[in-house]
Amino acid sequence: MASGGASERVTAAVLIIGDEILSGRTQDTNLRDIARYLGVHGVDLAEARTIPDIHEEIVEALNALRHKYDYVITTGGIGPTHDDITADAVAAAFGVELYEHPEIIAQLTERWGDQLNSARRRMARVPRGGDLVKNPVQGPPGFTIGNVFTLAGVPAIMRGMLEDVGPRLRNGAVTHSRTVRVEGSGEGTIAAPLEAVAKAHPQMSLGSYPFFGPDGFGSNLVLRSRDPEELSATVAELVAALKAAGVENVREVEAAA
Amino acid sequence: MASGGASERVTAAVLIIGDEILSGRTQDTNLRDIARYLGVHGVDLAEARTIPDIHEEIVEALNALRHKYDYVITTGGIGPTHDDITADAVAAAFGVELYEHPEIIAQLTERWGDQLNSARRRMARVPRGGDLVKNPVQGPPGFTIGNVFTLAGVPAIMRGMLEDVGPRLRNGAVTHSRTVRVEGSGEGTIAAPLEAVAKAHPQMSLGSYPFFGPDGFGSNLVLRSRDPEELSATVAELVAALKAAGVENVREVEAAA
Repeated sequence: MASGGASERVTAAVLIIGDEILSGRTQDTNLRDIARYLGVHGVDLAEARTIPDIHEEIVEALNALRHKYDYVITTGGIGPTHDDITADAVAAAFGVELYEHPEIIAQLTERWGDQLNSARRRMARVPRGGDLVKNPVQGPPGFTIGNVFTLAGVPAIMRGMLEDVGPRLRNGAVTHSRTVRVEGSGEGTIAAPLEAVAKAHPQMSLGSYPFFGPDGFGSNLVLRSRDPEELSATVAELVAALKAAGVENVREVEAAA
Repeated sequence: MASGGASERVTAAVLIIGDEILSGRTQDTNLRDIARYLGVHGVDLAEARTIPDIHEEIVEALNALRHKYDYVITTGGIGPTHDDITADAVAAAFGVELYEHPEIIAQLTERWGDQLNSARRRMARVPRGGDLVKNPVQGPPGFTIGNVFTLAGVPAIMRGMLEDVGPRLRNGAVTHSRTVRVEGSGEGTIAAPLEAVAKAHPQMSLGSYPFFGPDGFGSNLVLRSRDPEELSATVAELVAALKAAGVENVREVEAAA
């Protein structure tokens, strides 16, 4: 942050919503990914809570955290099934109603046509007064209202949505971002070189956003740093490490929106 | 749960104490390990919080959780360095003093001899009225006071200490779990039959955990109950409901631990 409030501490909390974490069935990794992402953006993760899919618990935790910290990021509970109740709880915490967002309905209609049933329509519901959080990976967007960002629980989608959170944070430091695109190689191939480069640059954020579709598969690797020189050096290092690992189709692309 | 308190729900919370988790430097795995351990002992993990190494934050969270749940398990902050302040905070929460436990001093003296400095002596401090939690792995023990168990943060040591926690829990009933795997159908398709079955069995836990990747997509549906007979009947009911809804590729798989 070039200007004035350089010493101001900006804080965030993470609210992980999901029985599957509390039962031990699923190992959460979103907390670490969000912590690193926020760190690069100059925001301190000050607390995290993991709670079950219970309406009152979500409302209570959300209200406690959103009044205590500058930002709250929730993960999980925004899919189409009956246990996906995060949108309802966020709306209740803010005392507003849910409505079907026309952009999401349009997107779901394009995807599902006359198979757009009531379960899928659930995913179009956002609190009144809220705004959308882009989902560059797969499926409908997340949303934001007040100082709360509500993201998916699936790690790859959560990380993709985070890319649309950073620019909205009143952050301590400007973050630079560049994207390296790999085509025709899966995450299993790129994981080792990516991890090696990430470990060598602990101050940076490196994310992998896989894609797959009729035209092929691969991953967009997003590198983020406060230091543009380290960023450039690391992009070169990553490309070299990927090629050394046998990844042939790798190139830098325009940063994803 | 063959006997008496069959319907009694016993709950626990986990309090993860450590800046290294909130900075994203360390990936926590203790939550999952504790959740699984408690599940086997018939105790429901109802909430988890991750907080920094700040005295007031630890005291406040500990007091909130120990009054709300039957048990609290803390991890982290019991080593020899200046930021290891968990013992102080637990003592403060219970309004008691710390003292050097003679058993731990004896153990440390045997290990360190005249290298037993003041930093290492910190690890001998336990709250008055507390009891030790055995450490079968390495280093000094943890401790317990009231309904709180204070364990190490290092995963292997934490898991070892857990073995001395289970026998002290007033445990309810073991929870049984089975998993139905759907391939080639998304959550939008399975939501309606899943919800119908969930509504018919309010005492059970039914969760949907989607997956997708280059090899395909689908969802693991996890059913959990304390009643193995209801569990079996519900698995059969769910498979039938899914097939009736046009989901073809559905089968039971080995339950995740």
